[in-house]
Amino acid sequence: MVEPYRLTASQALALMQKGELSVEDYAKSLLARIKERDHVVKAWAYLDPEFVLAQARDLDQIPPEKRGPLHGISVGVKDVILTKDMPTCHNSDIYRNGPAPLVDAAPIITLRASGALIMGKTTTTEFAAVVDGGPSTNPHDSTRTPGGSSSGSGAAVGDYQVAIALGTQTAGSTIRPGSFNSIYALKPTWGAISREGLAQYSMTCDTLGLYARSVEDLELLSKVFKLEDDEPVPAAPFPVKGAKVAFCKTHVWPKAGPGTKAAWEKAQELLKKAGANVEELELPAEFEKITEWHANVLAGEGRTSFLGNYLLAKDKLNKSMADQVENTTKLSRKAQLESYDGCARLRPVWDEIASKYDAVITPSAVDEAPVGLARTGDPSFCSMWTILQVPCLNIPGFAGENGLPIGLTLVGPRYHDLHVLHVGKAFGKIFEAEGGFQLKLF
Amino acid sequence: MVEPYRLTASQALALMQKGELSVEDYAKSLLARIKERDHVVKAWAYLDPEFVLAQARDLDQIPPEKRGPLHGISVGVKDVILTKDMPTCHNSDIYRNGPAPLVDAAPIITLRASGALIMGKTTTTEFAAVVDGGPSTNPHDSTRTPGGSSSGSGAAVGDYQVAIALGTQTAGSTIRPGSFNSIYALKPTWGAISREGLAQYSMTCDTLGLYARSVEDLELLSKVFKLEDDEPVPAAPFPVKGAKVAFCKTHVWPKAGPGTKAAWEKAQELLKKAGANVEELELPAEFEKITEWHANVLAGEGRTSFLGNYLLAKDKLNKSMADQVENTTKLSRKAQLESYDGCARLRPVWDEIASKYDAVITPSAVDEAPVGLARTGDPSFCSMWTILQVPCLNIPGFAGENGLPIGLTLVGPRYHDLHVLHVGKAFGKIFEAEGGFQLKLF
Repeated sequence: MVEPYRLTASQALALMQKGELSVEDYAKSLLARIKERDHVVKAWAYLDPEFVLAQARDLDQIPPEKRGPLHGISVGVKDVILTKDMPTCHNSDIYRNGPAPLVDAAPIITLRASGALIMGKTTTTEFAAVVDGGPSTNPHDSTRTPGGSSSGSGAAVGDYQVAIALGTQTAGSTIRPGSFNSIYALKPTWGAISREGLAQYSMTCDTLGLYARSVEDLELLSKVFKLEDDEPVPAAPFPVKGAKVAFCKTHVWPKAGPGTKAAWEKAQELLKKAGANVEELELPAEFEKITEWHANVLAGEGRTSFLGNYLLAKDKLNKSMADQVENTTKLSRKAQLESYDGCARLRPVWDEIASKYDAVITPSAVDEAPVGLARTGDPSFCSMWTILQVPCLNIPGFAGENGLPIGLTLVGPRYHDLHVLHVGKAFGKIFEAEGGFQLKLF
Repeated sequence: MVEPYRLTASQALALMQKGELSVEDYAKSLLARIKERDHVVKAWAYLDPEFVLAQARDLDQIPPEKRGPLHGISVGVKDVILTKDMPTCHNSDIYRNGPAPLVDAAPIITLRASGALIMGKTTTTEFAAVVDGGPSTNPHDSTRTPGGSSSGSGAAVGDYQVAIALGTQTAGSTIRPGSFNSIYALKPTWGAISREGLAQYSMTCDTLGLYARSVEDLELLSKVFKLEDDEPVPAAPFPVKGAKVAFCKTHVWPKAGPGTKAAWEKAQELLKKAGANVEELELPAEFEKITEWHANVLAGEGRTSFLGNYLLAKDKLNKSMADQVENTTKLSRKAQLESYDGCARLRPVWDEIASKYDAVITPSAVDEAPVGLARTGDPSFCSMWTILQVPCLNIPGFAGENGLPIGLTLVGPRYHDLHVLHVGKAFGKIFEAEGGFQLKLF
């Protein structure tokens, strides 16, 4: 039998349902994996093995008929999300070594009520609001960043230390680590999952993100979080043959590195081979403004969001956050409002464009994870979709010049999250099998 | 000397700065007032007099040069806002008698860092999401509701039990209690104050609200929370003479009761007498759709927000909230998105209309506070402005057929909060002096 830590959530769940795996043995396997790898990957901000085992044993005591849909499934939680029994430190000197807050964020309430095994807190950049990285490393090459700000969540799932992890995305913080760590990452439609109890940076952009090593696992989570499209998704696999697939480079394309460019070509080739009708999609010129609008919205909203901690302990706050409170860029309210209204105007325009296709593909990141831990990478390819508030799925499978993972993003119209997963499962099978990425880990 | 509990925040602050009032004596006066009145008004969900006094003594120990801009000022906190040292129970059977969460909501961090004396938690309707009232009563007539969902905050400030209180508004939960309790209530522009650590119902509408008994106090809070318009507000009082003032009945006007109608006439008469140019403002017909859009957005967002507690303990959750999770109204994502986009389209339209006037007045509530505690009243006049995300200030001063308070709302374009306060201070002086409300309390 394969080591339990290697199982996806769906695989582990199936074994547990058949009585072939206890939560305790599953947890022990994961903890052993973490023990083996933590000195390299450093994905955890908080982990108490004894507490994990105690929870696992409690879960094992629940009679089968009372078990939840995520019974025993291991979840890592980005350390900007409140957990009642574990500290939430935001990678901030203000909150380091703080107590457990005795209150759960809304998504944690949902996960616990569904039987999940909350393993621990995963590393984040400071308040998920900066790009200064470390200490976590990329499991595929420890000299490189795992991306951020959901650094530990991406790395832990990529390194088989946990089946599921929660991240957040305000620019590219869920999708980019997804690409860098060769895992599936879903940033759902804005508002589809409650954000209560998550650190706040941008009310307009902050979105809970979900990591897993299979689309099946994300589908399982989508059921738990009651994601729902208007149109039911067919039970049968999405037929790639005959599918209308748009490749949308966006105005950010000049930033694309050789790895992303190669993945772009390869994906088109693979989808064409599978019978899809592939075409290039060029967005109306106004969409180019979104990059600046996104920056304005974050600057205006960060000004509000970081005020409390600025007043409490400015000296312990990242300078970029203090600068936002002080509005050092002199952003006017007028520019902030024009940015809100511009993005709001383009949301239905995007929905209409996207609805003409079965799928729209766009880059996830500039290239492979860059060397070094000091910076978590460039979110430019993601921020547009975040502020358009549309579902984004990173699909892994490609490799860059150094053999490191590269993913591509499937984007959809708002509230077509299940459709995106349905298509993503079919595309993922192809990209994982033939995209060229070879897992060198282990 | 007047009893300290009767002082506005600005008045108390001035005495403290002159060394004529200690925080401890101020707190003792408030606690005595609460002791005298609590059996009638029942505004507090949590209050520990010993803890309040201990905090007050600690504040008195701070040397004058290190005191914050709100040094010692009493603040009541709606019990849907996290406070590290007091339980947050949301008036929910799920969280009743829970522990203090050891974490502060962002606005509480700001208030504490500014030296505020956090008195306790004030009553709310369940999760600030329903209109089922009680146990709090209206300080002006204990057979009537103080409004809701910020019931205790409105009642406590109206009853001189605290100088300042925090509420929230998703439909009319800050402005309506403002009107019913004869106090000033500011619902700032959406996003102007952080919402981190507040219970979440609607991401699009939830806004922190501020209560006080003078506009000076709200101006003090606006400095603490760094509200800022693009145009600086003149130091001189707003000149009512020659001001261009629009009265905007909105499509909800047929709901207005005799008290609101009389206040409407009286306000026009008073402003005209003071030299203002008063005119009626009729909004474009599309604004009528906002009532339905607001309902759709709340239904769609409540579906997400209440999921966790629904899964945790559906039997302990208000049926209306469970219905939202179950989407019993069969709201489609399409209708939800059209509602988002419709409101977003009208926001800049409203800003442009409002910018043509120095001030726009609109009703705060249907009428005086209705008899009975079972329902907290009708938010219809407020919900439009909430989802337009614009600043709203309830100005008290008028009286209904039973001599109970009625206020009117000053609304402005987005991010003109300071302008609204500036105008509101001038209008408030007139309305309070000549509007007809006579304080019968005490």
